[in-house]
Amino acid sequence: MAHQLGQNQYGKAENRIVRVTRTGNRHEIRDLNVSVALSGDLDDVHLTGSNANCLPTDTTKNTVFAYAKKFGVQSPENFGILLARHFVDDTPPIHRARIRVEEYVWDRIEIPDNKARFIGSEEIGHSFVRRNTEVRTSEIVYDGTNVQVISGLKDLVVMNSTNSEFWGYIKDEYTTLKEAYDRILATQVTARWKFGFSGAEGEQEPNWDRSYQQVRKHMLEAFAETYSYSLQQTLYAMGTRVLNNRAEVDEVRLELPNKHHFLVDLEPFGLENDNEVYYAADRMYGLIEGTVHREGVTPVIPVA
Amino acid sequence: MAHQLGQNQYGKAENRIVRVTRTGNRHEIRDLNVSVALSGDLDDVHLTGSNANCLPTDTTKNTVFAYAKKFGVQSPENFGILLARHFVDDTPPIHRARIRVEEYVWDRIEIPDNKARFIGSEEIGHSFVRRNTEVRTSEIVYDGTNVQVISGLKDLVVMNSTNSEFWGYIKDEYTTLKEAYDRILATQVTARWKFGFSGAEGEQEPNWDRSYQQVRKHMLEAFAETYSYSLQQTLYAMGTRVLNNRAEVDEVRLELPNKHHFLVDLEPFGLENDNEVYYAADRMYGLIEGTVHREGVTPVIPVA
Amino acid sequence: MAHQLGQNQYGKAENRIVRVTRTGNRHEIRDLNVSVALSGDLDDVHLTGSNANCLPTDTTKNTVFAYAKKFGVQSPENFGILLARHFVDDTPPIHRARIRVEEYVWDRIEIPDNKARFIGSEEIGHSFVRRNTEVRTSEIVYDGTNVQVISGLKDLVVMNSTNSEFWGYIKDEYTTLKEAYDRILATQVTARWKFGFSGAEGEQEPNWDRSYQQVRKHMLEAFAETYSYSLQQTLYAMGTRVLNNRAEVDEVRLELPNKHHFLVDLEPFGLENDNEVYYAADRMYGLIEGTVHREGVTPVIPVA
Amino acid sequence: MAHQLGQNQYGKAENRIVRVTRTGNRHEIRDLNVSVALSGDLDDVHLTGSNANCLPTDTTKNTVFAYAKKFGVQSPENFGILLARHFVDDTPPIHRARIRVEEYVWDRIEIPDNKARFIGSEEIGHSFVRRNTEVRTSEIVYDGTNVQVISGLKDLVVMNSTNSEFWGYIKDEYTTLKEAYDRILATQVTARWKFGFSGAEGEQEPNWDRSYQQVRKHMLEAFAETYSYSLQQTLYAMGTRVLNNRAEVDEVRLELPNKHHFLVDLEPFGLENDNEVYYAADRMYGLIEGTVHREGVTPVIPVA
Repeated sequence: MAHQLGQNQYGKAENRIVRVTRTGNRHEIRDLNVSVALSGDLDDVHLTGSNANCLPTDTTKNTVFAYAKKFGVQSPENFGILLARHFVDDTPPIHRARIRVEEYVWDRIEIPDNKARFIGSEEIGHSFVRRNTEVRTSEIVYDGTNVQVISGLKDLVVMNSTNSEFWGYIKDEYTTLKEAYDRILATQVTARWKFGFSGAEGEQEPNWDRSYQQVRKHMLEAFAETYSYSLQQTLYAMGTRVLNNRAEVDEVRLELPNKHHFLVDLEPFGLENDNEVYYAADRMYGLIEGTVHREGVTPVIPVA
Repeated sequence: MAHQLGQNQYGKAENRIVRVTRTGNRHEIRDLNVSVALSGDLDDVHLTGSNANCLPTDTTKNTVFAYAKKFGVQSPENFGILLARHFVDDTPPIHRARIRVEEYVWDRIEIPDNKARFIGSEEIGHSFVRRNTEVRTSEIVYDGTNVQVISGLKDLVVMNSTNSEFWGYIKDEYTTLKEAYDRILATQVTARWKFGFSGAEGEQEPNWDRSYQQVRKHMLEAFAETYSYSLQQTLYAMGTRVLNNRAEVDEVRLELPNKHHFLVDLEPFGLENDNEVYYAADRMYGLIEGTVHREGVTPVIPVA
Repeated sequence: MAHQLGQNQYGKAENRIVRVTRTGNRHEIRDLNVSVALSGDLDDVHLTGSNANCLPTDTTKNTVFAYAKKFGVQSPENFGILLARHFVDDTPPIHRARIRVEEYVWDRIEIPDNKARFIGSEEIGHSFVRRNTEVRTSEIVYDGTNVQVISGLKDLVVMNSTNSEFWGYIKDEYTTLKEAYDRILATQVTARWKFGFSGAEGEQEPNWDRSYQQVRKHMLEAFAETYSYSLQQTLYAMGTRVLNNRAEVDEVRLELPNKHHFLVDLEPFGLENDNEVYYAADRMYGLIEGTVHREGVTPVIPVA
Repeated sequence: MAHQLGQNQYGKAENRIVRVTRTGNRHEIRDLNVSVALSGDLDDVHLTGSNANCLPTDTTKNTVFAYAKKFGVQSPENFGILLARHFVDDTPPIHRARIRVEEYVWDRIEIPDNKARFIGSEEIGHSFVRRNTEVRTSEIVYDGTNVQVISGLKDLVVMNSTNSEFWGYIKDEYTTLKEAYDRILATQVTARWKFGFSGAEGEQEPNWDRSYQQVRKHMLEAFAETYSYSLQQTLYAMGTRVLNNRAEVDEVRLELPNKHHFLVDLEPFGLENDNEVYYAADRMYGLIEGTVHREGVTPVIPVA
């Protein structure tokens, strides 16, 4: 019996690409992980075994590398938009492209006191150490008309060692938690934020790199400056701070695992633990998720 | 400036629970990872710092353990339905509960030739080895009226060492892939399938454990029996096979990474590689995703 | 200032290879991860920048694939011995080779009721599902004279839901643990065992595959049949059982993390937990390691 | 049949501890993962089921937390020495203790333009973001007489985008690699270095934190400043640089996976790739390991 084919997409995932730009001795690098997902007139591919409308995933990989050469990588968002437009505009059976990009950040290795002995080494501009901080993310969707850009980050781990309380909650028959008036609040931020940018003709692209740095800064500051009565409250403060400061963003979604730090009971050893010694737990963890958006905007970032 | 609070949810994630049922010397175990996410009248929690409507995530954890004792674990789905109904029906500010369950399977250790020396050891019914095969998954959502059950599996790795071709595709300027008339087809199946079951009064629950075994079996058989011209075609065959054989399921979604096995070029060494020696690549990989559903059914399983 | 170069080695790690053997419609596969490490006259490579004595790691990779074609993969151990002998015997500056092999096991997909529609499908012998059980490991070292084989496994997860106690231990000022008279004992076995085999001329190789199955079986049986007063006691029982039953093995080393399953306190909810509901913890964990060897044998398996 | 019990050890692994030191509004944190392994008169524990000589792993965990309160965490090394001395000196059956510590680094969240609204917020000294850079490691062994300290780091990822060549190597029948005169050299450094410090009475402890920063700096500088003809040569340069600059260190061992960055062939697309576009591969990878030590010192850092 035949059944309906619903939403489907395909492409090459996790193309790991390093793009070097050389200006004399000084190199710049961008280190990306690019995933392509295409949709369109693909019923026959699923139903009949005909691949006549199928652009091979291998070709989508080649395109990522060739585009990095031809156009460089100005930013993950700009690069993703170029790719998405190409796949849809230049491949008739393809009607929608989703490009996901992760970026890994590298710093230059500092050589305060240069001891290099090879010729031309007086200025070392080609040595890098990976910062390994949070991963910058971006998702670009293009359907032939509109561009939608959702940027974000993951693995940004933050902690307040005080100024966090949790009390006044529901107590039902399964509640044993004691109210806390001074606790550690720590979380590993996953954030996504949607831009108002729609890719209309003549529309100016935001300065994606600067926007990223500013959104990140405002989230960190809001985390640090919020006296917290719940991680939910901190989440809302972080989202609001971004919207208040970055006009190009109209929706923010945050996933904040509560990385529990439990105060260790040292009384059996005759010691008082005055909020000094904590056990950092792995699992279970609270998981707080939520969207904050401007009035009048229909939120689109999906629940994970 | 105040902004809108959109979709939000919270709860305790990854509650790792082992439930032992002892019938004399013979024990049964179920090994689960249970995640709770609750939504409802939670604006104040985010906006004002009042937790009056907040059931602590710690309480949701306690409830999981207490329910395992009170009701046992008949199946992940049944257990999840019990929990979801409890959180919504018994906690006025909570209007929606989503329970996700992973299950890990254990086999009994076989003792063909019993050498145990302690009293009562003639029948060893308490020793287990984890099968480490695919993880069984389940997601139960209850909104006070309807129950929606989406079950699934992940990390089921399969391979056909022949009977797979790929040719006749689009060739654009970035295409270098050579057509293949006999290739390895391997994938790591992530599948989710939705049940028609809605939890209406008097409605009979499916036999969840038997259903799981049967869906898994039909997917494996379809994978093995399909002569494949693309992974998309195999995907559709697997989804269709499940719908044709399991009336309780009305939608199937599959995510199939193409785990590339590249034929190694042995010609430089004077050797012919007659489809015998392959290099198993990690990244990049093709990623094929799609939904198959019955006519008249509105698909609900979200894109990952 | 010049300093001494001590132990050094190099090679290509994690060569992922799948070897298919086709006998008509029935295929056999072996799925390996092979790592090569070579030592020898390599001072110049480190000190002067001369690579005259350096066999490239890329060549070691090619050799793994070419040997899989030329000789097949009888077993991880046999394949490793062939490779180790080649690198040392055929490359004058190389004096020692260490080959590490991991093997992943696949089962055939069972088709009890064959529905395949393509020609020749009546007997499907090319479809596999990965068992994902423990990983089989092997390390072969050859120094030009002797072969040393240490086989093993990892990620074999086992549990006894009773017949484990722990009491009578030291109580110092930091001891709060309560004695346990019926607890879950669970561990994730990493085991390595050394063979007496030395690769002397005319010496018969053990049946490596059969030996592996038997060692594994005896460890599982010893785990299940031992009434345990400590994980150390279980460790010793497992090692002894192998030595008593497998003459080809003369040393066993085990690393047994104590995967704690804590009895959940259900009293606050008016429920008694009669060893039924456990919380499976991730970290911290006890870690028990030890060697058991035959009298007169000098143990060589290193501490991890 | 009884067999010999060889090397054995036990203890609680991966105790995750965060130690907060509060000086008014300004907090300091140290975030550690501490693993304990004890050896001694433990034959009975393995052979007879008597735990009379067994200090429970749970007690070793409690001790880690209690010591963090009592003595603070001056440095991972100092903390490990305190613990190791305690377990051996204060527990008669324990004759040897090995303490392993990992440390995770946090930076303060910068608030350039303070917007906090709660009282006392003018100086935020309790908000941190995890740097997620390399992990600092330390292993302390105490046998009742001597202390041995091996410190290190892992997951330090570095790259030179030029000034690396590889040619002039052995060409055998399996060699296909082309010589390279300008390649990317990237690696993920795992390093361990042994201190001359032996813990004799009156001996001054090094400034562990400063030593760590300096060793790291010298390794990074040596990596950046070495014009490389092989990763082995870079390894030797890194080890030598540390020994030349840090008198407290007398042995260095490095494990350097060659994180291959392959130049992408863009010729099929009519593009020249002038060392601009690379594919960053995961596996296989070269693995280069080696020890550099002072003359007259017997190296002790084991092969991984």
